[in-house]
Formats: sequence, structure tokens, C-alpha cells
Amino acid sequence: MLIVGEKINTGRPGIEGAIISRNVAHVQDLALRQKLCGADVLDLNCTTMRYREPEGLSWLVETVQTVVNEPVCLDSPNPVALEEALKVHRGRAFINAISAEDTRYRTLIPLVKEYRCKVIALCLDDRGVPETVDQEIAVANRLIERLTQDGVDVDDVYLDPLIRPVGQGEHLGNFSLEVIRRLRSEFPTMHIICGVSNISYSLPARALLNRTFLTLAISAGLDGAILDPENKSLMASLRAAEALLQKDPGFRRYVLAFREGQLT
Amino acid sequence: MLIVGEKINTGRPGIEGAIISRNVAHVQDLALRQKLCGADVLDLNCTTMRYREPEGLSWLVETVQTVVNEPVCLDSPNPVALEEALKVHRGRAFINAISAEDTRYRTLIPLVKEYRCKVIALCLDDRGVPETVDQEIAVANRLIERLTQDGVDVDDVYLDPLIRPVGQGEHLGNFSLEVIRRLRSEFPTMHIICGVSNISYSLPARALLNRTFLTLAISAGLDGAILDPENKSLMASLRAAEALLQKDPGFRRYVLAFREGQLT
Repeated sequence: MLIVGEKINTGRPGIEGAIISRNVAHVQDLALRQKLCGADVLDLNCTTMRYREPEGLSWLVETVQTVVNEPVCLDSPNPVALEEALKVHRGRAFINAISAEDTRYRTLIPLVKEYRCKVIALCLDDRGVPETVDQEIAVANRLIERLTQDGVDVDDVYLDPLIRPVGQGEHLGNFSLEVIRRLRSEFPTMHIICGVSNISYSLPARALLNRTFLTLAISAGLDGAILDPENKSLMASLRAAEALLQKDPGFRRYVLAFREGQLT
Repeated sequence: MLIVGEKINTGRPGIEGAIISRNVAHVQDLALRQKLCGADVLDLNCTTMRYREPEGLSWLVETVQTVVNEPVCLDSPNPVALEEALKVHRGRAFINAISAEDTRYRTLIPLVKEYRCKVIALCLDDRGVPETVDQEIAVANRLIERLTQDGVDVDDVYLDPLIRPVGQGEHLGNFSLEVIRRLRSEFPTMHIICGVSNISYSLPARALLNRTFLTLAISAGLDGAILDPENKSLMASLRAAEALLQKDPGFRRYVLAFREGQLT
């Protein structure tokens, strides 16, 4: 399970201010806390900063990699911001996200190739978000084919079936789970990742829906998640799902999390 | 989802004493609290009372039905206790449980027929607990066939795939879920029920594993559970799973539970 920590994002309170004031301690603290809670990779997003995004993103990369000497996930559709950040990034970055939308694909693929990035790949094309499971699988197929033709290793692709809120249609929970099951069945070794919090939009007790959905999605075949690793109940559900679904040999991660007081 | 409240059980502290001292208030309070938390049916179990079980079980039936004017679930393999209880029971009781073990089946089926009981049917025969999914499905098939030949309506049968603790074998979580999926696929309209707490035996943070397993089992096709309805997190997971899996039209039960403060 690849856990991508989502908290360094200017959509969250205080982050844009921390970037503008070059508050190194604030950002590094957020990075280290997420790592400590189990994040494998840290997502960096400052798209709300618009024309200042390129300098913001590259500053974030340098600031974070000073304390977490590992690749990060560059979360932007903006090739200028991505390129500035990739220039200072050490290791092979993740890009979040490419898609089958033609312009977006053509804009980002040169960077992916030049910097040998790993990519989160949205199952989405110029017709928008697929309406049926079959359509979504077809989009995924074309996207994988295109990425492969462009020399991207399939093991570096993380398919992201865009999760739509169940509050916008009662079938959308089953729809997302069915898409994940079908992707897992058609591409047994492919990575499948998603952000979980969208599922609960507009409904009450969102954290409960998010962790319940994450449990169901792991069972359907998800092997990556973009989430808040400091959300203890969410991470506890993830560890419990792994333990129950034989994805945690010897229950080592589960028992360790328990000993560290993470499962209470 | 049929929710069977498990708390009136002499295996739990205080219950045997309450029965012996004929503490009507204690038992009725436990009955009403479970109903208030969402139990559809109350399980009554005093098997630990041995030779006093028949009088204990029939007293429980009368005491509970005085305040909850609905059928209960008689939890015993003892035909004498069951018959005493059935004599005073109003409505069509559940019997927990019949199985494909020959002696148990022959002993209980006359009562099931005479009192038109609903039955929880354990997927278990004289060879013991099935070792493979195929074996378990075969046992379920024979059990359903035999019950049907004896005139039991399939809608009155609740198949119970005995849940074995994942702590006794890391594959046993996936095994149980696969059994439920196969039962659901082979018998689309059949009821499938289980007790959830066995799954977590011998592991830490049992409540977390129980609610995570319940979520996964509902997704696999479970439509009944024997549980403690006063466990708020467990019931919250159940309501969230129903909401996400399109088993709660208009999210009515979910939103009601939220308004009643049950989802926090």
C-alpha cells in the first residue's frame, strides 16, 4: 500500500502563508509528522498560488527534501511549475496527475520522459469523467497504451479512478468500487490509487464514510491512497483492512501500530 | 440487514445472576437498549446454565416479550430448552442454530417444523468445519436442500459461514469473505448471517478488526449480523457501509443515525 500524505497543500489553512513567509519549520514539521504516521510519499500542492506556483513548488521541494531525503509527489497540472520543481528535485518524482485529456497529456509527457517521473494517471479524457464502468476501463486501457508507447514503465503508473461523491448519486460508491475491481482484474500488477475524501462530500460524518470507503476500496484492489496520515482512525482502518485481507505478513504493521498507540 | 442483538447471553457478566434472581428489570433494560440501538431481533442464550437452561430460556422469552412484542432468537442446541421456550414464545422464533451435523439436524428439525421457526443454519457437518471454500459451499448446498425437503421456506433460512479467527491463519479473513461472496453468488436471494467478533480472537484492538471485517463482509454479500448493537463504532461502520453500498435508500438510516448522535 502506497500512502501519499496530502497535507502540504495550499488549499489547507496556513500552508500558503507558510510558503510566502518561507516558514521552513512549519513545512518541515508537517512533512516529518506525516512520515512518522506512515506516509510513504509526500504530496506537494500549491496550485492556488497561481503565478507564484513555480517558485512555491520548487521551494517546497527543497524544503521538504532537506528533512525527508526521498522523492515527493508534485501535484500540479502546470508544466512550468512542474519543470521548476523537477530541476531541484532529487530522485524520481511522482507527478500528480497526467490524464488522457489530449492537451494535458501532450503538455506533461515530455517532462515525465525527461525526468523519468512516476505518474498518477487519471482515468479521464476529453469527453470528461466516464459515465459507465466500461467507458472508464476503456479510457484506462488507452491511457496505459499511450504511456507505454511513450516509454513509461507500467510499474511507474498509478491509475486513479476519479472518485465521485456518493452524495451526488447513491450508485457512485458501488460504481467506484466496481471500477477498482475491474481495473484490478484487467491489470493484475498495475498500481491503483485514489484520494478517498471525495467520496463523502456533502454528507455528514465524513471521516466515517472515508475510512469505510478506504476499507472497501482496498478489498476491491486499491494499492495506494492519497490521504491525511495524521487521521488516526483512517490509518487504523487501513491497517485493519491490510491485516484482514492478508496484506500484512505476520500482522507486523498492525501489531506495530497497536504498540505505538495508533489503533486506539 | 438483519441485526441480531447478542447481549442477553449468560456468557456475559451478570446475566446468569439476573436470570437466577429473576431480575426482570435488568433483562428488560438490556432488551430495550439493544432495540433502541437498532437490533431487529434479540438473541437469548443461557446455555451455560446446563440443567436449568430450559426454565432459564423460557423465563427469558416471557420477560423479553413483555417489553419487546416481537419474535426472539433462541440460541441453544438443546431441544428440551428450545421446546420449553417455544411453548411460551409468541410469533415465529428464530433458532440459532441448526447445522448439517446429522444428530443436531435430526434433533432440531421436528421443532423447526412444528413451530414454523426461522433458522440460522451453520455451514458445518459431521466432518467438522470445512477446510476449503468449495467444501463449505457443498455443505451449504446439502443443508439448504435438506431444509427445503423438510418444508422450510428458503426465505426463513439464514446461512452462517462460521467465521474463524484470522489470528489462527492469515488467510482466514479472505477465506471467510470468499465463502460469503460464493454463497451470495450461488444463492442470490438467500440470507447470510454471521457473528463478527470471532474474526479478531487473539489479536489486539479487536473492536477495530470487528468493524472493519463487518464492512468487508457486507460488501461480500452478508445481510445479517449477530453483534452488540450498543457498540457505537461497530454500528456506525455498518451504517456507513450500507450508505456506500447502496443499501440505504436516500441515506435515511445513515442521516437518522447521525442526527441521533450515533455516528460520532
